[in-house]
Amino acid sequence: MQTLTVDVGHARYSVTIGPGLLARRDFFEHHVPGDGALIVSNPIVAALYLDPLRAGLAGRRIAECILPDGEQHKTLSSAALVFDALVENRLHRDATIFALGGGVVGDIAGFAAACYQRGIAFAQVPTTLLAQVDSSVGGKTGVNHPGGKNLIGAFHQPLVVVADTDTLLSLPDRELRAGLAEVIKYGCIRDPELFGWLERHIAEILARDAESLTHAIRRSCEIKAEVVALDEREQNIRAILNFGHTFGHAIEAATAYTRYLHGEAVALGMLMATDLSARLGLIDDDVTRRLRDLLSAAGLPTSTPRIGRDTAFGLMQMDKKVKAGAVRLVLLERLGSAVVGADYAADALAATLDEYFA
Amino acid sequence: MQTLTVDVGHARYSVTIGPGLLARRDFFEHHVPGDGALIVSNPIVAALYLDPLRAGLAGRRIAECILPDGEQHKTLSSAALVFDALVENRLHRDATIFALGGGVVGDIAGFAAACYQRGIAFAQVPTTLLAQVDSSVGGKTGVNHPGGKNLIGAFHQPLVVVADTDTLLSLPDRELRAGLAEVIKYGCIRDPELFGWLERHIAEILARDAESLTHAIRRSCEIKAEVVALDEREQNIRAILNFGHTFGHAIEAATAYTRYLHGEAVALGMLMATDLSARLGLIDDDVTRRLRDLLSAAGLPTSTPRIGRDTAFGLMQMDKKVKAGAVRLVLLERLGSAVVGADYAADALAATLDEYFA
Repeated sequence: MQTLTVDVGHARYSVTIGPGLLARRDFFEHHVPGDGALIVSNPIVAALYLDPLRAGLAGRRIAECILPDGEQHKTLSSAALVFDALVENRLHRDATIFALGGGVVGDIAGFAAACYQRGIAFAQVPTTLLAQVDSSVGGKTGVNHPGGKNLIGAFHQPLVVVADTDTLLSLPDRELRAGLAEVIKYGCIRDPELFGWLERHIAEILARDAESLTHAIRRSCEIKAEVVALDEREQNIRAILNFGHTFGHAIEAATAYTRYLHGEAVALGMLMATDLSARLGLIDDDVTRRLRDLLSAAGLPTSTPRIGRDTAFGLMQMDKKVKAGAVRLVLLERLGSAVVGADYAADALAATLDEYFA
Repeated sequence: MQTLTVDVGHARYSVTIGPGLLARRDFFEHHVPGDGALIVSNPIVAALYLDPLRAGLAGRRIAECILPDGEQHKTLSSAALVFDALVENRLHRDATIFALGGGVVGDIAGFAAACYQRGIAFAQVPTTLLAQVDSSVGGKTGVNHPGGKNLIGAFHQPLVVVADTDTLLSLPDRELRAGLAEVIKYGCIRDPELFGWLERHIAEILARDAESLTHAIRRSCEIKAEVVALDEREQNIRAILNFGHTFGHAIEAATAYTRYLHGEAVALGMLMATDLSARLGLIDDDVTRRLRDLLSAAGLPTSTPRIGRDTAFGLMQMDKKVKAGAVRLVLLERLGSAVVGADYAADALAATLDEYFA
């Protein structure tokens, strides 16, 4: 069991990573005060992990809200189901929501916690690698709108994050790999040592070696916590966490969010952002090659769908990070260091889009 | 034109009160930067004041979202209509929502602004006395749930509050009086001088004398701003603003939110809270008498519906201010000073409930 602290000034909370945490009643009694609890989950995760978590929360008044599974259900209507469950079970301001599941459950439950009675406590209990290394830390919550992902949301920091590595044992391979894309991202934008470590240990991680997974999750959460502490509301540096995401969102949108998992699209997006960084002379081609090799070794895609340059560019401009028309992108200035900006040569972007999408 | 400043630490904004503000383009250009604007209003207010506000915002890209009028439409579905309008009109993070209307419009529009892209700017342009002296200042936003009022919401401070006193000229008498209940409240909880001034000037206010109205609004906003600055998130002192509201909510709920306007129910609730304060020996009976006389002079109700003691007590316990079972109430310790607590004699509360509801 390893613990680190996230400190965003007005809120401070711990992220604990390790096996067998879900059923640890002593752990929850220490970290989460109060009596009323609503566990929000989905049918697949609930079937596997609701009982252990119920054991961890024994002695409390526990209610459940099981949401339909899948990104297509990350909607205001699902958040409304959580509100209904809170009201029906007479849970008040002093209640805590436990988000047991992946990023979709965490985002919806966190948003509902942010809004219910103008903000109640919530605990992130992520059960996917992606949620453990990314969405459960940092306080971004929200739901999708037909017009765009995460258009409706709130910044609401959790009371605690509990990443039980045992839950990864039931995770499908493809989802494990998609989560790894975000781990690789942290190496790219902030930590060349992590990148090198991943190059050397990718096989152990794919074999779900507990120690390797714990190290990868811990280091990812540390980096995310550092960046979020510097800039909770994404006024500036937090945007580097979107490395690969603007290209990735265009790929997801152009393929109707069905062909690629988020992490897979981000893998491709990182490759494109790295390619663009090299074209702009910021980094050597060697970095692109190393990234491509690592993504391949992790079982992630490295070949892009041919969605067309103009389609892609149009979708990138819809991205919510666009300010006054310019597409802001996260670029690498070396392996382990990212910059954000819109003052790159437009023809270099066009060349990257042609290379990968034409 | 009078201006005061609200400062809650992380946010600082001005409240400007006076005639003819809506159409003042220079004013809006100075206070609200940016290009994209969504005006949220209802059909009645829009018919009267959309054109003046459009003139004030001339030169911007303006979209409209006209919501159905009435508290019964203060729902998550109405907030969803605002999200739709923002997306359809391609308004992004740098857009501003203008809430043109009473408390319902302000609460919905403010909540939508809090959630859209995790928070965009919004300007409160209140057109009722109640909204000008109460809901537009302080950053509480939200919508109702079938299980309770304002159960879904956010703290989101406006960028600016613009109280155009000309808009009160079209306000129905009954709504003007209901707004006065909150002005009287500020006198009760925080300012005996304001209370005395109201006793002397109630006739001028009811005659809509511009100078008297401006004074009443300014002093109310000053007091609310002081209290909110001390305690934005209602951890302690802000709760005094709920003086009369716990009894009032029970009255509103027992009469299906149709018989009394909010301010009317608050007037009755204040009378009951004052009665209870006197029974507990905190204040003289003389205070109850002065309050009853002032409410009468303001044309507000002073006789309560006979909803029954047990019904009332049950409804009061549902109030979201209840923590661990105890009903916290705001009581007067003298005219102009309020305290919050749950450690009063239960038999005194029972006597007040009997006196007013049996």
